[in-house]
Amino acid sequence: MALIVHKYGGTSMGTTERIRNVAKRVAKWARAGHQMVVVPSAMSGETNRLLGLAKEVAPSKHSASVLREMDMIACTGEQVSVGLLSLALQAEGMEAVSYNGWQVPIKTDSAFTKARIQSIDDARVRADLAAGRVVIITGFQGVDDDLNITTLGRGGSDTSAVAVAAAMKADECLIYTDVDGVYTTDPRVVPEARRLHTITFEEMLEMASLGSKVLQIRSVEFAGKYRVPLRVLSSFTPWDIDINEEAKSGTLITFEEDVKMEQAVVSGIAFNRDEAKVTVMGVPDKPGIAYQILGEVADANIDVDVIIQNVSHDGKTDFSFTVHRNDYQRTMDLLKTKVQPATGAATVIGDPKICKVSIVGIGMRSHVGVASKMFRALSEEGINIQMISTSEIKTSVVIDEKYMELAVRALHKVFELDDPNAVTAAAEEE
Amino acid sequence: MALIVHKYGGTSMGTTERIRNVAKRVAKWARAGHQMVVVPSAMSGETNRLLGLAKEVAPSKHSASVLREMDMIACTGEQVSVGLLSLALQAEGMEAVSYNGWQVPIKTDSAFTKARIQSIDDARVRADLAAGRVVIITGFQGVDDDLNITTLGRGGSDTSAVAVAAAMKADECLIYTDVDGVYTTDPRVVPEARRLHTITFEEMLEMASLGSKVLQIRSVEFAGKYRVPLRVLSSFTPWDIDINEEAKSGTLITFEEDVKMEQAVVSGIAFNRDEAKVTVMGVPDKPGIAYQILGEVADANIDVDVIIQNVSHDGKTDFSFTVHRNDYQRTMDLLKTKVQPATGAATVIGDPKICKVSIVGIGMRSHVGVASKMFRALSEEGINIQMISTSEIKTSVVIDEKYMELAVRALHKVFELDDPNAVTAAAEEE
Repeated sequence: MALIVHKYGGTSMGTTERIRNVAKRVAKWARAGHQMVVVPSAMSGETNRLLGLAKEVAPSKHSASVLREMDMIACTGEQVSVGLLSLALQAEGMEAVSYNGWQVPIKTDSAFTKARIQSIDDARVRADLAAGRVVIITGFQGVDDDLNITTLGRGGSDTSAVAVAAAMKADECLIYTDVDGVYTTDPRVVPEARRLHTITFEEMLEMASLGSKVLQIRSVEFAGKYRVPLRVLSSFTPWDIDINEEAKSGTLITFEEDVKMEQAVVSGIAFNRDEAKVTVMGVPDKPGIAYQILGEVADANIDVDVIIQNVSHDGKTDFSFTVHRNDYQRTMDLLKTKVQPATGAATVIGDPKICKVSIVGIGMRSHVGVASKMFRALSEEGINIQMISTSEIKTSVVIDEKYMELAVRALHKVFELDDPNAVTAAAEEE
Repeated sequence: MALIVHKYGGTSMGTTERIRNVAKRVAKWARAGHQMVVVPSAMSGETNRLLGLAKEVAPSKHSASVLREMDMIACTGEQVSVGLLSLALQAEGMEAVSYNGWQVPIKTDSAFTKARIQSIDDARVRADLAAGRVVIITGFQGVDDDLNITTLGRGGSDTSAVAVAAAMKADECLIYTDVDGVYTTDPRVVPEARRLHTITFEEMLEMASLGSKVLQIRSVEFAGKYRVPLRVLSSFTPWDIDINEEAKSGTLITFEEDVKMEQAVVSGIAFNRDEAKVTVMGVPDKPGIAYQILGEVADANIDVDVIIQNVSHDGKTDFSFTVHRNDYQRTMDLLKTKVQPATGAATVIGDPKICKVSIVGIGMRSHVGVASKMFRALSEEGINIQMISTSEIKTSVVIDEKYMELAVRALHKVFELDDPNAVTAAAEEE
């Protein structure tokens, strides 16, 4: 008998018919002898509907007291979901009970609309499990020390599920979603993309932050920190699929030290075409110059991704970084009107038509020449590399966006991700 | 400066536009120097939508754990309302904060879907008021000792508002609704019906239970028990109506001892055409016979209203009572198949086409001949009285339903309720 946490997304909970199917699936797991905790999202569209109502009456300035009410309103979608799922489970003949975050309680800080979980008291949930009940807990919600309702931000239900699994030392946390796992890259770009049977947390973090939006990134961080075995799998399989088959489906996100055998060098190719590149050219290369440039950008609430400063020539250097494409014009204006005069930079140039392509793999740590293999593959396709950024398990390049698909396909092939045997090898330690 | 509780119904909260108008009205009261607590209902239609979803997945047997989830789901409508109203007030430049029942807390027993309020801790609300905030509290909701969410049953928001007003010793509780007060009778039946400026709690209780469904009856009981001055008034006046005029509008429900001057003998005419009459004839007149008959009816979960047992002849008596018309056939079947054989009654007869008409008035206590004046008026119209039931401040008759309008109009006239001067006299002590 294991303690299992299931998380279901808004699409899986989208209609009462689908909620009945979720209940049947959960009941199957409970009848197989597992203690079950379930964390469902709001019915799809519901959170947007609620926030839409809120926006119609809210003041334009979003003070803490406004954000508090946003949370008060938005979190009701999850409350309805847990109640409906509990009813559907009871209709299946199971004993079930639902809780809001504050009833568990799931304690958070008071950062309304983006609260962080601080602690979870699992005594009440354990008592229910011991009494044979399925326990259903709202995703997304928490409560602060003053009993105000908080929410964890969009996609926060993944984090709730992982946090509950961590607090209860669950044997596995299964995230049911509308994809059937994590792929070597986006199958829409590379038809040969293959589902990974396992991926490490570190790789998943790099994949997620680079645009493979399968899981909320905070949930992966949480799982890594508290060592929660996390599985991403499809909620579109029939509910009565054999439970042993289901338990092995999807992608298991696991720990590096659990990877017993030889790991493929590169696990996946991530890409992102939402970025734009800007360069401040000919700035005096002196201490504080990076802060002088990026401080202004941060003050304007613009997120920066890749940052590169080249070596200087004649006491001058070029400083490049990427921002979200939506922030491109604002960033260019800021650099030209404020940063350029203040720093004495020669000029400011930019390009919104770029993309970032990354190879990700824990195996890169112990394999030399991975980056150069990447650069050679791109060179052979005639693709010019505009920026390079590396970390221990990732190498990213910024290239012209028109080459994105070509680059991704070439890299997918050269790192043998097309090869079923190579990937299967990496997966078999599961 | 007074402490004022406002309660707004689902229609007043029906759209974000209307919620903005509620916020403007509340802001007007707050700016006039009053401490304001507001209890809004769910947006109209929302509770039905939520319970509709619940019914689609719920098991047919409504155990306590099923009812618990019904409350979990249904109460979210009020949570959304308080958040929206708080946002709208903040958009008006007011400081405002919303609370769920459990956050106050409003403690109840654990009778899910029909919980009773046990206590209200007003410390948190008082602190907010002292800090200059408008406090918005969910109607309908409470929380039991185990931190389960409970609801007070349909229309429970009236009770919430009155309970909060009682706990905080509010100066007045204003119930904004879609009628502009309590009338001498239904204006659709008697065009001359007049709005009462005041009515006593006792009269209001009799009027409400007899079909003048302006307020949830439990809220009136609560107001009477805790001596909360209660005013029913229209939410359809413009929000910027002069506050002194608004404060005197509608109908004030007050205490008998506050009625300083001569009270009209009869305050109103109530009626109800939802009832049916059944009679068990020729039952042996012996101890326990009433229980033998009504026990079976109660076991079948059928509510009984008027009960009459005539004096016996030759050791036999006739036992009559009224039930809701929807329960008529079930009651007849029960009486014929179970009660008649068990009691040895001669026969069972019934009539679903009846109505009940009542005169209500605190003045009846000190005036003789009121009932006979009623009977004479009905007699002069040729209306046969089938049953009579009396209490201290009410006399009810059961008559053929086809005479209902005629009876109500005749009584309205004979007790001078058509007369503006008579009613104004009763009202001026306000």
